[in-house]
Parts: sequence; structure tokens; C-alpha cells
Amino acid sequence: MKIIVEKDYENMSKTTMQLLLGKMYQDKSVHLAITAGSTPKRMYELLVEEMKEKAPLTNVSYYNFDEIPIGDEKYGVTIANLKAMYFDPAGIPEEQIHMLDTKNYLEHDAHLKEVGGLDAILIGIGEDGHFCGNLPGVTKFGDETRLVSVQSRPDMFDILLGEVGGDAEKVPEYYVTMGPKNVMQAKQVILFANGKKKAAIIKKALQGPVTEDIPSSIFQLHPNFTVVLDEEAASELNR
Amino acid sequence: MKIIVEKDYENMSKTTMQLLLGKMYQDKSVHLAITAGSTPKRMYELLVEEMKEKAPLTNVSYYNFDEIPIGDEKYGVTIANLKAMYFDPAGIPEEQIHMLDTKNYLEHDAHLKEVGGLDAILIGIGEDGHFCGNLPGVTKFGDETRLVSVQSRPDMFDILLGEVGGDAEKVPEYYVTMGPKNVMQAKQVILFANGKKKAAIIKKALQGPVTEDIPSSIFQLHPNFTVVLDEEAASELNR
Amino acid sequence: MKIIVEKDYENMSKTTMQLLLGKMYQDKSVHLAITAGSTPKRMYELLVEEMKEKAPLTNVSYYNFDEIPIGDEKYGVTIANLKAMYFDPAGIPEEQIHMLDTKNYLEHDAHLKEVGGLDAILIGIGEDGHFCGNLPGVTKFGDETRLVSVQSRPDMFDILLGEVGGDAEKVPEYYVTMGPKNVMQAKQVILFANGKKKAAIIKKALQGPVTEDIPSSIFQLHPNFTVVLDEEAASELNR
Amino acid sequence: MKIIVEKDYENMSKTTMQLLLGKMYQDKSVHLAITAGSTPKRMYELLVEEMKEKAPLTNVSYYNFDEIPIGDEKYGVTIANLKAMYFDPAGIPEEQIHMLDTKNYLEHDAHLKEVGGLDAILIGIGEDGHFCGNLPGVTKFGDETRLVSVQSRPDMFDILLGEVGGDAEKVPEYYVTMGPKNVMQAKQVILFANGKKKAAIIKKALQGPVTEDIPSSIFQLHPNFTVVLDEEAASELNR
Repeated sequence: MKIIVEKDYENMSKTTMQLLLGKMYQDKSVHLAITAGSTPKRMYELLVEEMKEKAPLTNVSYYNFDEIPIGDEKYGVTIANLKAMYFDPAGIPEEQIHMLDTKNYLEHDAHLKEVGGLDAILIGIGEDGHFCGNLPGVTKFGDETRLVSVQSRPDMFDILLGEVGGDAEKVPEYYVTMGPKNVMQAKQVILFANGKKKAAIIKKALQGPVTEDIPSSIFQLHPNFTVVLDEEAASELNR
Repeated sequence: MKIIVEKDYENMSKTTMQLLLGKMYQDKSVHLAITAGSTPKRMYELLVEEMKEKAPLTNVSYYNFDEIPIGDEKYGVTIANLKAMYFDPAGIPEEQIHMLDTKNYLEHDAHLKEVGGLDAILIGIGEDGHFCGNLPGVTKFGDETRLVSVQSRPDMFDILLGEVGGDAEKVPEYYVTMGPKNVMQAKQVILFANGKKKAAIIKKALQGPVTEDIPSSIFQLHPNFTVVLDEEAASELNR
Repeated sequence: MKIIVEKDYENMSKTTMQLLLGKMYQDKSVHLAITAGSTPKRMYELLVEEMKEKAPLTNVSYYNFDEIPIGDEKYGVTIANLKAMYFDPAGIPEEQIHMLDTKNYLEHDAHLKEVGGLDAILIGIGEDGHFCGNLPGVTKFGDETRLVSVQSRPDMFDILLGEVGGDAEKVPEYYVTMGPKNVMQAKQVILFANGKKKAAIIKKALQGPVTEDIPSSIFQLHPNFTVVLDEEAASELNR
Repeated sequence: MKIIVEKDYENMSKTTMQLLLGKMYQDKSVHLAITAGSTPKRMYELLVEEMKEKAPLTNVSYYNFDEIPIGDEKYGVTIANLKAMYFDPAGIPEEQIHMLDTKNYLEHDAHLKEVGGLDAILIGIGEDGHFCGNLPGVTKFGDETRLVSVQSRPDMFDILLGEVGGDAEKVPEYYVTMGPKNVMQAKQVILFANGKKKAAIIKKALQGPVTEDIPSSIFQLHPNFTVVLDEEAASELNR
């Protein structure tokens, strides 16, 4: 595990971006799974800035690692968010974007196998220690990319309700997520987090026991695991 | 996970040897941790045969991954066994052998880090699911290379007594072993097993839950995990 | 460069096979370009033997690296030869065989790029220092996979006449070959040779100047270049 | 070959830095050979800025790839320059700096072999196509790390006189440089250049024949070769 502590959110965002760019600027096909959500907001702004005034990096393929369908809308929560924050403003062509959804998730895995696996996956961490859609209570370390039912946890309906914008009609029966087993196959796992409210879980996930109660603790065992934090998120770590 | 099933012990031994040779015959430094015990007996005989009539492969460095000291004898159980089965008959020079013992285990890890990690580790599996010296009950997935006390389990004294040849005077206070965390860093993990008595644990370790009760189940999450079995050891697997 | 010298053709063949098997027995997609011709004859016999009584290695994809069309026959010289020696007796399914020919050679390169490149390429060497279809006089180090004209050298018609079996009607306008630039992209280059008549060119290619006059001399610059020789082929080397 | 064109020197410097940082931010030992001279000036300023307010990246080892001794001064031209521009202001500890000089160059190669080779080498290009100390006329593609004599070319004395600051007393008998053969072993080769005066040689080195007359043309054959240019240096390329 390599932990990089930056003074603030701005620098955490910049360093994470540099990590991704370092992968992209290679003379080979590069396969990246990237996260949606609030943590990467600034990072994508910086990345969009970098992509301007430059020929597109056609060697890069992008993947989402989970998806929550919204009623019968064309795009689910994750892809809609990634499009808004990154793909559209950066002008990433559709053929470089490999969308995982509840229908194609088995081909997604097969495709990744065929192209030699993910070069890197960028993930955030929830205050409960979840990563991707791997929540405590519904996740086993051996889980692969799979559907997770709205009935898998008593509070799952409410969680999904929040994700789809509060309209109960649009809450799906299932969402899809890569599991610990698939994420562990990535050549590099990059986890980033900022803010005081992440400090406790960062301490547990990185320096506590490896346990399914904290799904992201599994990455302590990954051979190339890089963590980028701001000072606040790192504040409870033994350093 | 890639599972290769061979018809018998002879072919399992040959295939495992081919896997190791495939690593060794490269134009780069190759770092291999290899197992002692009864499973590799025939494999080492075949390997010694291959090493004859050929210039030594000076690019290969060998490591043991656990050690039980025997009283104040020069070599512990593992290295003595590896020397007898492989290093001595194959004429491997001492400078290519990096011995892990209860005194130097912290430098061992640092050395591995410096040379870029293990290219492969070859392990067997116990009927209780242990690998290296990582026994159920005394092993956490997050464990690193460490000392394990003779008092860590009620039956540990008896286990070690068997290992050192039955002389209670020679049972050590501690043995040393690489932990799951370190073994998971290897670029490839190769597990081999043969015989009916391994069939049940092979089924559990490879196709059951990932759990500390069966320490070797963790390799389901390794990105390059190859298993070589004979028909008997594979007989309970879903194929 | 790693040079392995075996006592005879049998052992050279066995060691080369072990190298290939070491690649194949991995938990990932493996892409191998392999040679036709007389050098690999015994190696393929041994390999076919290994493939028997074992589930097929579906993770392996095979490629030829050159092809000479024969009139309007379905298969060219190289694929016909590989099918006879290896693919058919080993029972390799068609979907694991990626045929390069004079029509699809541009997609071949694109496909290799997409799957992450060749894990290894196994090549022989001609007494003139050629590899694949890269003959002295018609080869520049910067050449990519390309068509080579029957008129590119005064003696090319006769060379191709021999290859297609002596029927002048069947000599093609062009053959296709991967060039030095593409072969150098492979993660490992494996060159093998046997017999007294290869001793002089082995000396030049491995220990002489890097020059287009001896196309295979370029591999002195490859980062993972393994050479397997019998004693006769190695007899002129400085060791 | 992957060519990235940035609008100006500032952006070329930033992108090159991002490439290096992407390597450094990994959970493994990283070995980088980096260039002195005028091209990297701004890049090192930016890199020093990034290194501030952050714990040192102790997993990174630095190497110079050539050296010109200056009389009997402690540091040669290259290391003195790297210290002034980067190592000292960034606070890189001495134990992370592996100095190549005319005395230790054989151990340098052996050390690189032992640690698994360079992860990347960052090089500039001369208007004559040279890289490191590999000048046209005195360089063969097969050359390894070696001494080059002041008498190897008629104008070499004058070249070295300029390098050591104009004092003829301080011109050395030999300088040392990694050769094409060693540089080609690096896992990634990064070449950067800026300005109109580099446009002609960039065109020749990247899109002309691979020839010893333009030593840097050899990198057309490297499996992971990234080029970062500003618009001016890229202005003669076919794009």
C-alpha cells in the first residue's frame, strides 16, 4: 500500500489526476474503470482542462464499475454522472466508453478478460467502508460482477431512492456492481478520499482488520494499491 | 483462477515444473519462493534432471517462505528439506538462495521489495486449508511475514514436535512464515495438490467462501492464480 | 539476452516447449505467435503429447507471423504447416487461431494492439539471418507488418517457388510478414536453432553488430530475449 | 510510439512531469533515469513544486544515464546539473540517487539488472539525433554502457570543452554513457523536446529510417515509447 497525503482537496484531486494521466500517456491500450460521485468532482474539472487543446487519447478505454438503472431512462445514475462531469466536457468519443449495466454485465467481464484486464480502477470509499456497489452486509470477498437486489438489505430501497432522485417509481429491482474479486484483478487500485468525515473509515479500511464488514479493507492485500488522501481524511492514520 | 487437471501425480509434477521453468528461462532476474514438503518431491526430481548438463540459471533467486528452527542446528526444517530435495542435487549456488529465518524476516521483506517482488510463489495446501505456515485459527488475512508462537494454538506444540522429528527439546518458541498479505504480492501464485485426501479442501478453498477459516481461499482474489491438480485432488470440483 | 544451450535437438525442443507452456499456464489471456518450418518439428510433437488428456487451454490465442499464399488454396504455406504439425493433432479450436494473411494484415496489427500485444513470439533463424519473412536486402528495421513483392529481390521468385512446392503457377505476387518493428513489441522474443549449419549465423546475429544485413541481430536490443540452442548451433559463440 | 503534442513549453513540461509522477505514485520500487540539460528546466521547477508539502516518495530511485567528469571535482557535469535543478531543491535523499560515473559504470548495469531494470528513462534529443551520450559517428546500436574517448571524434574535445565550462585543463579523457542496448531495456522510454530548432530532427528520428546516423531513431522499435512535444518541435511531423 502506498499512501500519499496532500494538504487539501485541490491537491488530492490534482495528484489523483496525475496518476491517471501517467497511465494514459503510454504507447499501449489502457483500460481504466473510474468512479462517479462527489469525491472526483474537482479531479474531473482538472482532467477536462488537461484534455483541451490536445489530440484525443484514443488508446484509452473507460469503464464504469457499477450502475443503478433509473426507471426506463437511457442512462443509469453512474453513466449519467460520468457523462456530465467528464465524458461530455472532455469530448471522449462513445467508442472509448464501455458501459456496464444490468443487462450486459456478463459480457463486461468477458470483454475485460479479453483485453488483458484493467490497468487501473479509481474508487472512492463510503463512510461505511463500501466501494463500488459493495456494501457491508451484502458483500462477500468472493463476489464477482453481479446484480444486487433492492431487497438485499432492509434499507436498500431508501439508499436507491436517494440515488435515483427521490422518485419511488424509478427505484430499480436490481443494480449491478463489480465485486471484490473483479476489482482485485486490476493491475493498480487507486482509492481517494477527502474530508474529516472519511477519517474514521480510512483508518479502519487501511489499518484495521481485513474483513467483509468493511469491504474496502480487502485492498490491503492488493499488490499495487495507491491511496490519495487530504490531510483531514488521513488525520486518524498511524503515520 | 486457472485450474489445470492432470491425470496423475507424475503429470501434475511435470506440469508444475514446466511452469517454473517457463519463469526461469527469461532474460531478467527471476525471484521464486518454493515449497518444501511431500507434494513437490517428484517435481524436484524432474527439475534436478532438467538442470543437469546445462549451464546454471544464474538469473534465478530462490526463497523459502517459512521456517521452523530445530534446536540450534544450522538449518531449519524447510531449508534442510529444500537443500536435500533440490538445492544440493541441482547444484544451486548459495548466493542464489535467500534463506528466511526467525532472525532475518524483516530484512527478507525489505529485500523482496527492493528487487521488485516475487515473480512466483509455489505453495502446497494442507487438509485444513493452510498454506505456508498460515494455519486456521492463527491467521488473519492482513498478516504479514511474522513469528508465530508455539502457544498460538493448543495443538501447536504437537504440530511442531512432528516437524522437528519428535524431540521435544528441539521444539522452538516461534516459527516464521510469510503471511497472506505478502504472498498476495507475488506476481503469480501457483498452488499444486494431489491425491484423494486433498479433494475436499481443494473444493472448499477454490469454490467455497473466501474466509480466514480456510486461509488459502484468499487466492480466489489473486489476479494470476494457477492451480495444478491430479484427477483425485480435483475430483470434488465443479468443472 | 538469455542463452540456454542444450546438448541436442531433443532437449532444445523440450526446453522451448517448456518456455511456451510456462506462458500458457497462466490465469490470463495469452497471445502467442509461433513459427512453422523444420526447427519446431520435434517441439510440436512434444507439445501435442502434453495437450492430450488435459482440458484445452482456452486462454491461449495463436498467431502466425507470416504467410505465403499458394495459388487460390484455402490455406497458405505457414498455416497449412502449423495445422499439420500442431493445431490439428493438438485439437486447437479454430476460434483460438488468428490467421494472418495478405488480405487481413492491417486488422491483424490492430487486433494485437487491442488485446494488449503478444506475450511471446517464437521464431527460427535462417542461415542468412532472416526471421519471419524479413530477408536481408528487403528488410529495414523500421518495417511493420507488410506485403513483400516477389520482385523485391532477384532470387525471390525462386525462394517462393520452393516454398509453394515447385509449381510456378502458384507463386504469389506478394507474401506477408510481421516486420522488425512489430516483432520487437512482443513481451518476450524466443529464438531457437539447432545444428552445425546454424552456428555461424548464430554467432553473427547474437554477438556481431546490430545491422539490417542480419535482420535478427536487432533482438540484441529486445528487453526480454531468450535463445535456446543445441550444442552445435552454439559452437561458435563466445561463452 | 505515442506522440503527445502540447501547445507550448509550459504544457510540454507539465505533461512530462505528470508522466513521471504517474510512475512514482505506485506501491512498488520505481527506478527512473532522468535527463539533465536545458529541456527539463521547467519540468523540474514544476516537479519541485509538487514535492513540497508532501512526505518524500521513498520508493523512487533515481539514476543519471551519462556523466562527464570535470577535472577532479566531486560531481560531474550531469549530476551537478541534476542536483542544482532537482535533487537539492526537492530534498531527494542521497540514498535514493544512484550516480553513474566513469569508475562505477559496470556495477551500475549489474545493479539495474538486480533491481529489475528501469521503469522509465526520460531523455532529450540533440539536433544531431543523439540521446544520452550516444553521438552519431561514435555509436553503434549494439553499444552498452561504456566509456567514450575524447578522441572518438575530431570535434569531441571541443564538445566536451563546452560541457565542462571552457577550461581545457578540465576536459576528461573519457565520459560515460548508457548505450542504445541498455536504454532499450527500460520498460518505458520518454522523449521530450521543444522549439523550432528540434522540428527537423524530430521528424527524422520518429518518422525516418532507423539508422545509426540518427541514434535516437532506434526508439521507433521500443514497445512502450512516449514522445512529448510542443507544437514547434512537432511542426514537421506527418500527423
